[in-house]
Amino acid sequence: MMVSQNALTVFEALKNLGVDCSMDEDQCVKHGQDQSPISTVISPDIVVYPKHTQHVMDIVSIANQMKMPIVPFGAGTSVEGHVLPIHGGIAMNMTHMNQILEISPESLTAKVQPGVTRKQLDQALAAYNLCFPIGPGVNATLGGMCSTGASGTNAVKYGTMKENVLGLEVITSEGKLAKTGTKARKTSAGYDLTRLMIGSEGTLGVFTEITLKLYPVPEQISVAICSFESISDAVNSVISIIQNSIPIARVELMDGHTVSLVNDYSQLELSEIPKLILEFHGSSQYISEQVERVNSIVSQFGGSEFNWATEKEERNKLWQARHDTYYAAIASKENARSISTDTCVPIDKLADCLLESINEVNDSGLPYFLVGHVGDGNFHFGYLIDPDIEAERQTAEALNSRLIERAIKFEGTCTGEHGVGMRKMHYLEQELGSESISLMQKIKQALDPNNILNPGKVVLLNSVQEDIEG
Amino acid sequence: MMVSQNALTVFEALKNLGVDCSMDEDQCVKHGQDQSPISTVISPDIVVYPKHTQHVMDIVSIANQMKMPIVPFGAGTSVEGHVLPIHGGIAMNMTHMNQILEISPESLTAKVQPGVTRKQLDQALAAYNLCFPIGPGVNATLGGMCSTGASGTNAVKYGTMKENVLGLEVITSEGKLAKTGTKARKTSAGYDLTRLMIGSEGTLGVFTEITLKLYPVPEQISVAICSFESISDAVNSVISIIQNSIPIARVELMDGHTVSLVNDYSQLELSEIPKLILEFHGSSQYISEQVERVNSIVSQFGGSEFNWATEKEERNKLWQARHDTYYAAIASKENARSISTDTCVPIDKLADCLLESINEVNDSGLPYFLVGHVGDGNFHFGYLIDPDIEAERQTAEALNSRLIERAIKFEGTCTGEHGVGMRKMHYLEQELGSESISLMQKIKQALDPNNILNPGKVVLLNSVQEDIEG
Repeated sequence: MMVSQNALTVFEALKNLGVDCSMDEDQCVKHGQDQSPISTVISPDIVVYPKHTQHVMDIVSIANQMKMPIVPFGAGTSVEGHVLPIHGGIAMNMTHMNQILEISPESLTAKVQPGVTRKQLDQALAAYNLCFPIGPGVNATLGGMCSTGASGTNAVKYGTMKENVLGLEVITSEGKLAKTGTKARKTSAGYDLTRLMIGSEGTLGVFTEITLKLYPVPEQISVAICSFESISDAVNSVISIIQNSIPIARVELMDGHTVSLVNDYSQLELSEIPKLILEFHGSSQYISEQVERVNSIVSQFGGSEFNWATEKEERNKLWQARHDTYYAAIASKENARSISTDTCVPIDKLADCLLESINEVNDSGLPYFLVGHVGDGNFHFGYLIDPDIEAERQTAEALNSRLIERAIKFEGTCTGEHGVGMRKMHYLEQELGSESISLMQKIKQALDPNNILNPGKVVLLNSVQEDIEG
Repeated sequence: MMVSQNALTVFEALKNLGVDCSMDEDQCVKHGQDQSPISTVISPDIVVYPKHTQHVMDIVSIANQMKMPIVPFGAGTSVEGHVLPIHGGIAMNMTHMNQILEISPESLTAKVQPGVTRKQLDQALAAYNLCFPIGPGVNATLGGMCSTGASGTNAVKYGTMKENVLGLEVITSEGKLAKTGTKARKTSAGYDLTRLMIGSEGTLGVFTEITLKLYPVPEQISVAICSFESISDAVNSVISIIQNSIPIARVELMDGHTVSLVNDYSQLELSEIPKLILEFHGSSQYISEQVERVNSIVSQFGGSEFNWATEKEERNKLWQARHDTYYAAIASKENARSISTDTCVPIDKLADCLLESINEVNDSGLPYFLVGHVGDGNFHFGYLIDPDIEAERQTAEALNSRLIERAIKFEGTCTGEHGVGMRKMHYLEQELGSESISLMQKIKQALDPNNILNPGKVVLLNSVQEDIEG
């Protein structure tokens, strides 16, 4: 590995500040990877492990002075290349800042550091009979979840990170601390910096503290599986459930082929036909009422009797299997990477968008999996490619491209929850137009004039990009 | 009225474009007023009435070329001076852009122009058995509601404008059209321009189209009044209702004195003691369940039997009376203006914050009213002053200042829904700190470098402020 004089200077400065840091090749290589299908890996020059907010301020401040790129790194579960340090520089591993600072059952809020993981938080909240319902499948950090505007299976009832983060402490590109919100449930206090920062993918600031909304654990949680003869019957059921505003907590789609992948990987014995996994939250009486309404809808579309997972263990096993779909798929093909799609369309366009896309991928012959948070109109194909076979990558990218065009035509978005990263910048422009991109560029330029914060992601700044690369 | 050469030039240019515009004194004076207690009224030089998006683009573009301030004007119901053209220039009256462009029951979305009013939309949606539940008391325009990040009585269940606007068409300071979102229910597509624009109070762009989330009208709506011996009993009931996550649709507080104002103004005969107005949405079975739980809570705090408003007319009359509190209070004192507070605190701090503040205003001797969307921790005092009596204004401002300090101490906000306008800029800094203000200034500067868009509101740009004034 070539080491620049700049990097050595920064490394010495960081060490003098007492910050844990490393230029060890193993460490650097590890922080040049994520779960995206991007194969051109560039390692950072330095990996740092801040322990507290002042560390982060110092590190960013030094990076800014030296005009050195800095990329916050959490659990490394991004699928869009967010954490790849494509211009080298500093990978800032946030996982040592993993304290839960406050849990307040009285105000239904928590304050956490960005390195706290979803499962760690779940576990801590369980003692209070509280929950934070935003759950992407993987065990991401809360900082990472803020960065991408994550959501997951519960969003249909509880919303996304955008609706469930009350405020952030953010370190600006100058290394200064800004507070974007309070513990109040709503606010009109100036520009909504909280929401601007959520989904900014490390390009506008680094999070050091996150204030979350909490919820009491529902009195009862009931999970049922319902099987269908065809995908279209399953999807049309979902459309009707949502149009009738039945307050379902989760409704997840799996196609028959994906069920078979999951059966193999997670030792389940589900029938290998299209399925909805339905979860209901509330009192037993309220759940009965919802179930009755949902039952009457699915029966119109030939849905099976509900198969109930009543025990907590059984439920957890089922959801874990669902969340492990990605790993199940990856394991099903040698040297596989997944190119994951993430379109989200208005609910009435879900069937049209999904069915056309299934036909297309079947025609292509590429292996894939299909899951979806269909209650939001959001679904994911995972096209399984061998990254070393260029033709497979091209086929997958062409499928993704056509799917996104279709979603945009239906007034949907290219990304419901995974974010833009490196791979969707041109789709972003296709979706929102050049003037919106120009506004985003102006914001980026204003808040990070040296373009040190995760450069090359979300929007490009042509004027300064070369400086960073040079 | 002094007319500058600049204004005449712009007026001619606008007329040549075929835009309705006026320099008539009556028109101008009318657009130099709102419902705030600010008495130093400055009229705009020109009032324009765009009819469509291209008009808005042309008008903003001319204003930008001429570095002339431009202030979008809706229903004029702001209470924080948002629409006051304090640097003269153009008042852009958006009320001729009042078309409902699309109502889609299938995707549960609507597209409206910014001049559409809340009641106009309600009426149109009724034909589809749909509703848009965000309701500030007044009949504001949807554009105005976006500008301030409005919410109102239903926010406890449905959220605010931030959670219920899917996307905007925005005209930038250069007169270009930017699209900030789609009809998808969730998105991670780049920086969240939609939320950045909502609550930006006309300072970052002008809205020309708004995409809204809709909801089916609830199967049943039940409204009950519950009376309490003391405010603290009423408030403690609310805290417990929220901590138990009972999905109540509205819970509004009125103190005994405010009830008497409302009785007089709206010809009601409510007992003049503290009250909660409770609204429940859902099936009759689900409502029964919620009512049972709420009943058991309020009875612990000595709440009365529920007094039900079962008929739609009766309900509407009650809510109209509640929403008319402001007018009832204004009518109760000669030459009265109201200085309205808008603090919002974490739910567990609601009693502490509210009760201390009631004691303080009682000690001051100033007449007032008190209402609150207490389920969110948000409440409003209206301190009734004679704007010509400086001592009254000073007393009211001092009360407001102490209330805001208290709310901030409790990790709350100075404004839950009214916005910053001209009167809360220093509180904003007190609440979020100077670094957040600096971020907001950088965003304003980047998106409106000539500071033409509603200058002097939300955040000040010292560097360019003088140009506008000079």
